[in-house]
Amino acid sequence: MDCIDLIKKRRSVREFDPKPVSRDVLERIIDAARFAPTARGVQPWEFVVITQSPMLKQIGETTDHGRFIAQSAACIAVFSQDTKYYLEDGSAATQNAMLAAAALGVGSCWVAGDKKPYAARINELLGVPPSYKLVSLIALGYPLTGKSFRIVAKRPLANLLHWEEF
Amino acid sequence: MDCIDLIKKRRSVREFDPKPVSRDVLERIIDAARFAPTARGVQPWEFVVITQSPMLKQIGETTDHGRFIAQSAACIAVFSQDTKYYLEDGSAATQNAMLAAAALGVGSCWVAGDKKPYAARINELLGVPPSYKLVSLIALGYPLTGKSFRIVAKRPLANLLHWEEF
Repeated sequence: MDCIDLIKKRRSVREFDPKPVSRDVLERIIDAARFAPTARGVQPWEFVVITQSPMLKQIGETTDHGRFIAQSAACIAVFSQDTKYYLEDGSAATQNAMLAAAALGVGSCWVAGDKKPYAARINELLGVPPSYKLVSLIALGYPLTGKSFRIVAKRPLANLLHWEEF
Repeated sequence: MDCIDLIKKRRSVREFDPKPVSRDVLERIIDAARFAPTARGVQPWEFVVITQSPMLKQIGETTDHGRFIAQSAACIAVFSQDTKYYLEDGSAATQNAMLAAAALGVGSCWVAGDKKPYAARINELLGVPPSYKLVSLIALGYPLTGKSFRIVAKRPLANLLHWEEF
């Protein structure tokens, strides 16, 4: 599929088929994440992939709005060194990962990490030194077929595009 | 091109052909940006597109590492309401825009906005109320053909992918 079509068709998926996502597919998703741009090219990020059900459950229960991670097939925890632009860098990588997932037929949902009271606990669970910032948790899995997801209407283009000035 | 190939081929472009980027192409780029996910679906962003040379020069001169904006064909200034997750939301939209640009043959480079001392001045130049946060400036233009760009080597996958724990 054309990349722009894919960008426009990707929507958050929070309910997953129990079918696992293969190691190869997970690697391709993170491989795409690492091609996101970073400020000064420092690439300050680290990606921890969780596929084991007990840890997926623990992570889901640790979050507030990410409880569905417990039923996901996998989760990528995106961490970064605490650089000035870690949040921009980690967010661009998260978006790349979600688009690559969509290209491979895998649904995903971005669960916030940065600024969350549970961030330190996620570091602990995954053995990540506290000096790394949790940017996001990406829930992954094949979408449940025949399921209609809650879709947020997007603001129309004319409403948010301003030519030459605001 | 396959979306994953495109994600991996997109690299920052800072030197542009003087050829303009059409209004239609710029609209398609921002149309892709607005399909990025946002926390709680609030879509807090606004996009100002600059195509006029005097303003491109002023913006370039206002930045530190974005002086090449002066020679770009266009620049998208990404703003957001000051929500808790504005930086994640604005960064995901910026990445979508850069990928859509690449899909349309347009080169781009992300210039930082958030946390920059010049952010307030960019708001002023573009008539954007100070309550909006500048997330990024996206320089756009057709890449100079035959030009070899400074390419930052990407960290290898095995170096940043951690299975199950750090």
